[in-house]
Amino acid sequence: MDHLITSIPEFQMSLLLFVALAGYLIAHRINQSAVVGIILAGIAVGPSWLGLVTYTDFVAGLAHLGAVVLLFTIGLEFKLEDISKPWYFLIALLGILVPWGGGFFLAKAFNFDFNASVFIGTALTATSIAITANVLREMGKLQTQAAKAIIGAAVIDDVLALLALSISEGLVSGTLSFSSIVIISLKAGAFLVVGALVGRLVVAKLMERFSCIKLCSKYPESVFIFAMMIAFFYALMAEFAGLSAIIGSFLAGISLAGVKVKQGHIFKEGAEHLQIIFASIFFISLGVILDLHVVTPTLLWFIAALSAVALLTKVFGCGIPARLSGMSFKESLTVGIGMAPRGEVAMIVALLGLNQNLIAQETYVALILMSLLTTIIPPIILRNWVFRR
Amino acid sequence: MDHLITSIPEFQMSLLLFVALAGYLIAHRINQSAVVGIILAGIAVGPSWLGLVTYTDFVAGLAHLGAVVLLFTIGLEFKLEDISKPWYFLIALLGILVPWGGGFFLAKAFNFDFNASVFIGTALTATSIAITANVLREMGKLQTQAAKAIIGAAVIDDVLALLALSISEGLVSGTLSFSSIVIISLKAGAFLVVGALVGRLVVAKLMERFSCIKLCSKYPESVFIFAMMIAFFYALMAEFAGLSAIIGSFLAGISLAGVKVKQGHIFKEGAEHLQIIFASIFFISLGVILDLHVVTPTLLWFIAALSAVALLTKVFGCGIPARLSGMSFKESLTVGIGMAPRGEVAMIVALLGLNQNLIAQETYVALILMSLLTTIIPPIILRNWVFRR
Repeated sequence: MDHLITSIPEFQMSLLLFVALAGYLIAHRINQSAVVGIILAGIAVGPSWLGLVTYTDFVAGLAHLGAVVLLFTIGLEFKLEDISKPWYFLIALLGILVPWGGGFFLAKAFNFDFNASVFIGTALTATSIAITANVLREMGKLQTQAAKAIIGAAVIDDVLALLALSISEGLVSGTLSFSSIVIISLKAGAFLVVGALVGRLVVAKLMERFSCIKLCSKYPESVFIFAMMIAFFYALMAEFAGLSAIIGSFLAGISLAGVKVKQGHIFKEGAEHLQIIFASIFFISLGVILDLHVVTPTLLWFIAALSAVALLTKVFGCGIPARLSGMSFKESLTVGIGMAPRGEVAMIVALLGLNQNLIAQETYVALILMSLLTTIIPPIILRNWVFRR
Repeated sequence: MDHLITSIPEFQMSLLLFVALAGYLIAHRINQSAVVGIILAGIAVGPSWLGLVTYTDFVAGLAHLGAVVLLFTIGLEFKLEDISKPWYFLIALLGILVPWGGGFFLAKAFNFDFNASVFIGTALTATSIAITANVLREMGKLQTQAAKAIIGAAVIDDVLALLALSISEGLVSGTLSFSSIVIISLKAGAFLVVGALVGRLVVAKLMERFSCIKLCSKYPESVFIFAMMIAFFYALMAEFAGLSAIIGSFLAGISLAGVKVKQGHIFKEGAEHLQIIFASIFFISLGVILDLHVVTPTLLWFIAALSAVALLTKVFGCGIPARLSGMSFKESLTVGIGMAPRGEVAMIVALLGLNQNLIAQETYVALILMSLLTTIIPPIILRNWVFRR
């Protein structure tokens, strides 16, 4: 019976939205970003404490849609020119290499074998664009120089992290081949370039023409449906290219950002409204995915060291090139801290390592917790210290 | 590989939204209601023809959410007083008894046994409030006397159809007991009365107070999340009471319709935007659920007769009491035709009968097709004849 109830979609929806509200309340009480509050609420209702929400396929699906819609709405606020500067490539590159090295040598110091160390290093490379972007938006800082650098570098980071993952897998399995690395980079790079070009030159024009046909004056909502279809289609294409789905929907958002259509407010507000409901579910899922019970006291030291390394390597790895590019100290610090959240990306890498028997269950737990801590701490630092007047 | 792709949420979403757009285009071309166009598009991409969309759990879940959100937004446009008139009870009652009798005797005439005939009669009793309400809204006729009668009677109809179903199950299994019937009616009736009272006196006030707390001026979106939480919670409670989930969310919509909050436009527009995306998926799913391949030529006569009986028994069963209540001929005809769509409700009853081995596979197919035809034909009649100037 109990199992039956929790499988009813409206049970999950009402519970998840209740948890989201609780998250807002927590965020408001502790005066932190809503993202932090909602993740904490997710931990509370997940297996760690109350056990009310389980990470079912349906919840996972909704969370995934939420992340896709979130990055689409964030993309809508940017121009391609804003986020594609050569310096951002350097920020992304060092933001991959430094954390990889930091993770690898830390693992070595904790007596992990070579394969596990490679994987731990790889798990530290990724950046979760969703968290920081939402936190910056919440604070009204999305149009700052630092925010643009973070977003731009995080997109490139996703390509480089994909490369790092495939290089690591090649190293571990001994099948590292130059040609496969080239193919992977070409596929991912081609998606970004072709996706951006097609988005600007074809999709945006298509949408403008679509919005002028008779159908759209009769059913204005069809423009909104069209826009969301593009968002999900780009997400799908990104996954085919080996990238995160959210990079695709972000690119779709950028492509449609400049589109001028009569019904423009409909699709922008509509996407915003979808995002409010489903991005909350995504943030909750980050908390639910974790079971704190499996943390043992002996593991705590490693988790603390791993999280510290994860934070500091991004702060220095991304902050130094940002400073070299001419940003102020505060802006560079913002970039470094803003690139630190690992979010769901590191969790996916950790799961991959676990499934391939490269890391043990407790290493997996450590990586998940590192991921969570690097997701929760940066918004707190940004809010209370960096952006404090 | 093929199977893998179709299980990616963004693949399903982009495909479903593409199908929805195609549905709008079909509707526009054949000059019919969008609902009809989208269902036809659903049939085309479902197993009947192209086989692109399968009715997975995820799609079913999204469709279910869509129906819940749709009825919530429709509820937001009504006052309780508008749709609770004694005459509507009579319209609902005769709208159950006449179709039940019609279905039963038709089945008998086609040499079905007693049990199957009882089930066929039962499948004809239900009314799908979602279809007609959306069609009337599309035509801007939601605030007419006839529309209010249809909505009010359809809600009562859901309670009576539930009773009819349990009486039929009792008859067939020989375990018909007076007390169980009383319990079922009490539960469903109590939900409607208590739900409406609590909605008006508690939930509406709660929402007004909630919208005034500091949290809501900081995060206006939390009012929207609150409203949707109520919608899904009411849907859940309705299912517990044995009613359709959509009756619950409709009641939630009515309860929140009169709420005056600063952020009122947020939750009303937000619900509308959710509905645009997910109600489309619901309409598509009605088409996808059907596989026309299983229709044999010999079955066609029965399907035609069944659909005709299903349509006419609602037209007369609901139209005559509407006329007696003092409505004009045209209004009464609208009520009769508007009550005819069986939608997903009859499909659920048919599935129940199949699972209990009370009806054969081909009877099941006939019921599903009847359900589809009574769903597609009434909007066409309403649009082209009844509401034609």
